[in-house]
Amino acid sequence: MGGDHGPEITIPASLDCLQNNPDLRLILVGDEAVIKRLLPQDPLAFPDRLSIQHATQCVGMDESPSKALKNKKDSSMRVAINLVRDGHADACVSAGNTGALMATARFVLKMIPGIDRPAIISTLPSIYGHTHVLDLGANVDCTAEHLFQFAIMGNELVKAVEGIDNPKVGLLNIGEEDTKGNEQVKAAAKLLENSSLNYIGYVEGNSLNAGHIKVDLIVTDGFVGNVALKSIEGAAKMIGTVLKEAFNKNLLTRLAAFLAYPVLKSFKQRIDPRLYNGASFLGLRGLVIKSHGGADVLAFKTAIELAEIEVKKDVIRKISEQVESILAQRQSA
Amino acid sequence: MGGDHGPEITIPASLDCLQNNPDLRLILVGDEAVIKRLLPQDPLAFPDRLSIQHATQCVGMDESPSKALKNKKDSSMRVAINLVRDGHADACVSAGNTGALMATARFVLKMIPGIDRPAIISTLPSIYGHTHVLDLGANVDCTAEHLFQFAIMGNELVKAVEGIDNPKVGLLNIGEEDTKGNEQVKAAAKLLENSSLNYIGYVEGNSLNAGHIKVDLIVTDGFVGNVALKSIEGAAKMIGTVLKEAFNKNLLTRLAAFLAYPVLKSFKQRIDPRLYNGASFLGLRGLVIKSHGGADVLAFKTAIELAEIEVKKDVIRKISEQVESILAQRQSA
Repeated sequence: MGGDHGPEITIPASLDCLQNNPDLRLILVGDEAVIKRLLPQDPLAFPDRLSIQHATQCVGMDESPSKALKNKKDSSMRVAINLVRDGHADACVSAGNTGALMATARFVLKMIPGIDRPAIISTLPSIYGHTHVLDLGANVDCTAEHLFQFAIMGNELVKAVEGIDNPKVGLLNIGEEDTKGNEQVKAAAKLLENSSLNYIGYVEGNSLNAGHIKVDLIVTDGFVGNVALKSIEGAAKMIGTVLKEAFNKNLLTRLAAFLAYPVLKSFKQRIDPRLYNGASFLGLRGLVIKSHGGADVLAFKTAIELAEIEVKKDVIRKISEQVESILAQRQSA
Repeated sequence: MGGDHGPEITIPASLDCLQNNPDLRLILVGDEAVIKRLLPQDPLAFPDRLSIQHATQCVGMDESPSKALKNKKDSSMRVAINLVRDGHADACVSAGNTGALMATARFVLKMIPGIDRPAIISTLPSIYGHTHVLDLGANVDCTAEHLFQFAIMGNELVKAVEGIDNPKVGLLNIGEEDTKGNEQVKAAAKLLENSSLNYIGYVEGNSLNAGHIKVDLIVTDGFVGNVALKSIEGAAKMIGTVLKEAFNKNLLTRLAAFLAYPVLKSFKQRIDPRLYNGASFLGLRGLVIKSHGGADVLAFKTAIELAEIEVKKDVIRKISEQVESILAQRQSA
């Protein structure tokens, strides 16, 4: 029910995913009447793979997380997360209110023992593949230990999703020299240097879009990560608008646009943010994927597909086991 | 002498500026022999407006600020800043080591009374004009009071340089709601709300490239500001490379590039980072402008021109007077 466009977007995206992936089963959670109205004439198109779970409430996009938690016990996001907790679903995908989704997920699913704070991870495009980044906004203040825990969790996710053994892990900083950064970052660097991770050192903001040749996973606190992510979104939007304006200037430039159309289209596809939609909440005992609120059908499909991949790769179990093993090592040390 | 290319870049840029601006007088500070070798055959091209100040030392780009301060008392940057302190120059422009330049400027020029920390301010392009942003990396940890002081200084700079009365001032945060952000940002918001500034509230990372219609000045701490700036640089570089690759793919796409050349050129000029080169150190009793280390002739010219504008608009005096007046108000309150 969530996001700027609600089920008008999430339902067509769900049907597309069911069409494309014969293994996929989906439970649409929300107002049954609304959902049924938006489903195709033939409700049995996917008889064994599509079901509806009614929820009487809906969390508003601007509602405070604490109010949503207290007053919306039958909201679509709460019911969906309950399904994950109870083993009826492997993951929850939502385009709803991020703060409320995180608070609800944390309350219902609980944290993985040994992890203090949940974190939000997503990918950014680059010339060479992409880079995974966390935290993107769940935590405004982070200690070195928090950053270290984010690295452990992100590392397991990247290993599982990308199928690589030793992801290159970097710590976001304002310079690559040892002397740079604040106390938390410097202390986190020490923890990472002494860990089994493939820690490559400090990376700067321009590495976020540098891709897997340089770094696979970038760790930062949620304030910096969120600002960086939105700065990149803003820059891309500004550049796209300026490019569009240049090609729309007059008849001659519009002719050039027509002739360059296939090139411009392939360019746009390479950096289409919709193909990078979907952020995973890590640190919880269950999988929750947050889609951008403004997602369209293509973007929401990407978020559902991300959930499928992480379920198939068993990301949450792998993170839990890794955290448990590190805890055991620390206790015996 | 500084920057990745040294006087090979800074001298041609200086000569271009002298050519373009009959009011301008420049003192080239550095190794006299090197400078003379790079000056044109006719050394009297600008007899009254160009002079050389010899300096025997040069600060390396990777040298630690404290070592530069201690061991390089006759470095080109130290001598240039001395000229500002002694009233022989109105501003110092350098492409050298940022940390050393800041440490030297702070040591030699001293702080404006009432300002605790210097900050670095620069502009970012947008579809509508540009946005001024500080701090871009001088301070990794900032209190609310520091952020407030940055806002006061930035506000005077924007007023003077843009010729507007009430710049729209925003505080960089991870959401626009009151509940968002860390303690420093929330406390800084209170200080700004109770100030005489035209404070518009929190802005997110995507506002950095939003331009003057939304916000004229964005205030943040140096860690976040530096990461955001470099994230934008990285995103722009990635997008530019992908666009270039798309047009270079094969004979057909290269033909499209040829036909679209004037459009692509005008697009590139609109967002050319060289036209935004130059960051001002604020909070000091003298004007120091830092150019990007990798600046070419055009970029270094932009930095010199920025110095000219700020000198003509008397930015440092205006900031000092404003800070003094606010201090007086606080003491009488």
